[in-house]
Amino acid sequence: MTTLESIAGGATAGTLYGVGVGPGDVRYMTLRAAGLVSTVDTVAFFAKRGQEGNARRIVAPLMTDGRNELRLEYPVTDEIPASDPAYRSAIAGFYATSADALAAELQAGRSVGLLAEGDPFFYGSFMHMWRRLSERFPVEVVPGVTGMSGCWTRANTPITWGDDVLTVMPGTLTEDALIERLSRSDASVIMKIGRNFAKVKRAVEAAGLTGRAVYVERGTMQAERVMPLAEQNGEIGPYFAMVLIPGEGRRL
Amino acid sequence: MTTLESIAGGATAGTLYGVGVGPGDVRYMTLRAAGLVSTVDTVAFFAKRGQEGNARRIVAPLMTDGRNELRLEYPVTDEIPASDPAYRSAIAGFYATSADALAAELQAGRSVGLLAEGDPFFYGSFMHMWRRLSERFPVEVVPGVTGMSGCWTRANTPITWGDDVLTVMPGTLTEDALIERLSRSDASVIMKIGRNFAKVKRAVEAAGLTGRAVYVERGTMQAERVMPLAEQNGEIGPYFAMVLIPGEGRRL
Ligand SMILES: C[S@@+](CC[C@H](N)C(=O)[O-])C[C@H]1O[C@@H](n2cnc3c(N)ncnc32)[C@H](O)[C@@H]1O
Ligand SMILES: C[S@@+](CC[C@H](N)C(=O)[O-])C[C@H]1O[C@@H](n2cnc3c(N)ncnc32)[C@H](O)[C@@H]1O
Repeated sequence: MTTLESIAGGATAGTLYGVGVGPGDVRYMTLRAAGLVSTVDTVAFFAKRGQEGNARRIVAPLMTDGRNELRLEYPVTDEIPASDPAYRSAIAGFYATSADALAAELQAGRSVGLLAEGDPFFYGSFMHMWRRLSERFPVEVVPGVTGMSGCWTRANTPITWGDDVLTVMPGTLTEDALIERLSRSDASVIMKIGRNFAKVKRAVEAAGLTGRAVYVERGTMQAERVMPLAEQNGEIGPYFAMVLIPGEGRRL
Repeated sequence: MTTLESIAGGATAGTLYGVGVGPGDVRYMTLRAAGLVSTVDTVAFFAKRGQEGNARRIVAPLMTDGRNELRLEYPVTDEIPASDPAYRSAIAGFYATSADALAAELQAGRSVGLLAEGDPFFYGSFMHMWRRLSERFPVEVVPGVTGMSGCWTRANTPITWGDDVLTVMPGTLTEDALIERLSRSDASVIMKIGRNFAKVKRAVEAAGLTGRAVYVERGTMQAERVMPLAEQNGEIGPYFAMVLIPGEGRRL
């Protein structure tokens, strides 16, 4: 019998791996991602100051003592709006420094697995490293189960049927833009809730969609919460939260 | 060292598993999906007449001789438009019969893994079985890497940056609807190409997006093809094909 390890395959020296770690539950990592996390010379990950790092926590069951780890610590929190020039310059500097740190590992001939929550090419920080490093070093990107797939699975609702159109939008849009997008779509996912929560909730209500809207916090992670959006209150939500409006298309 | 098998976990008698098998490469199956395919009493899958079945082919490296398999064979091909009443009644009858066949397995106390391409709750046939069976039997849905994640990974392009809005639309929309949706979105994915290929290509052109459009056929599968949309010609494309318009949002 083929073992899962042998299907997953190993890592090559001097290569950067963008490792999609999925929505949160370690069982939703792909074979390739799990194999790489177990074998790369260096496991790299982004983390907020004072926190373990969400991606690092997801892969914890696969890590053994004595592994080489590279922690890339954000200088600012996501609570500063991305439109603030101070945020933009701090984060651009941080990405440049982080890319240098990864480049040093790769130049020393080590294989590096940079963890990415969900899927690496769907929003997220990995892309900013990929942009800086993919012309200088060999890179392999390993797709992952997105946070939204994890969330609609736990909400126990198909998101799109038949010819439904799905719109994925960040909660950072203006209230009017959210209302407009929501009104024109069969199914919607609103990501990046955080400080946008109250605005998002008002927009869903204005679009007449509260009856179908599901709120999912930390989907597939510990302390997951799933409930009708109508039952979730407050001004601010957590970072790992989204709102789903499931489609109602053709059911045969 | 924890083995991947032990993380993946096993199957429970009389339970239906909706197993997302990912975009095509067996390495992109999740640990949970791979564990279930290896342990369920019955592996069930949809297939077109005269074909192996795409999902069945994806899991082939995990299958051993003598496993119990349940093949659910479509009475019609996807080349009949879904709007045709003959198609609708044939397919509804087929789904009813298929649900009965699955129910018989479950009633006999067997665990059943029904394979679903990509993610089970994102379009696809699994949802039609889930709708018919989830109130009568215990069901566990295992999210998967979507076909679109596999495709943008192989196209080597991030799909969304910063505050980009992503629209996922089926190629079955009218040409005008496609143009309108494409024009109003930062990033787009057009699924279900098949007989809609020429229309989709015209719509992308009319929306002024041909320069950014990538065509991906059988992403992460054998015989994968990736090219600028401008270079792909003809009236009809294959079933496993999509067009990607990557976003151009904030790059820090
Ligand atoms: C920067 S994006 C990263 C998306 C990630 N690359 C993916 O594929 O899901 C972060 C946002 O994803 C959403 N998210 C990701 N995983 C989630 C989860 N497990 N539960 C709820 N929301 C999640 C939240 O809306 C969060 O604000
Ligand atoms: C009925 S939908 C199923 C989607 C699936 N549940 C998923 O999560 O990707 C079938 C469509 O998905 C797209 N698709 C799925 N996998 C693909 C792949 N590996 N390469 C290209 N297109 C794919 C094609 O556009 C196809 O027409």
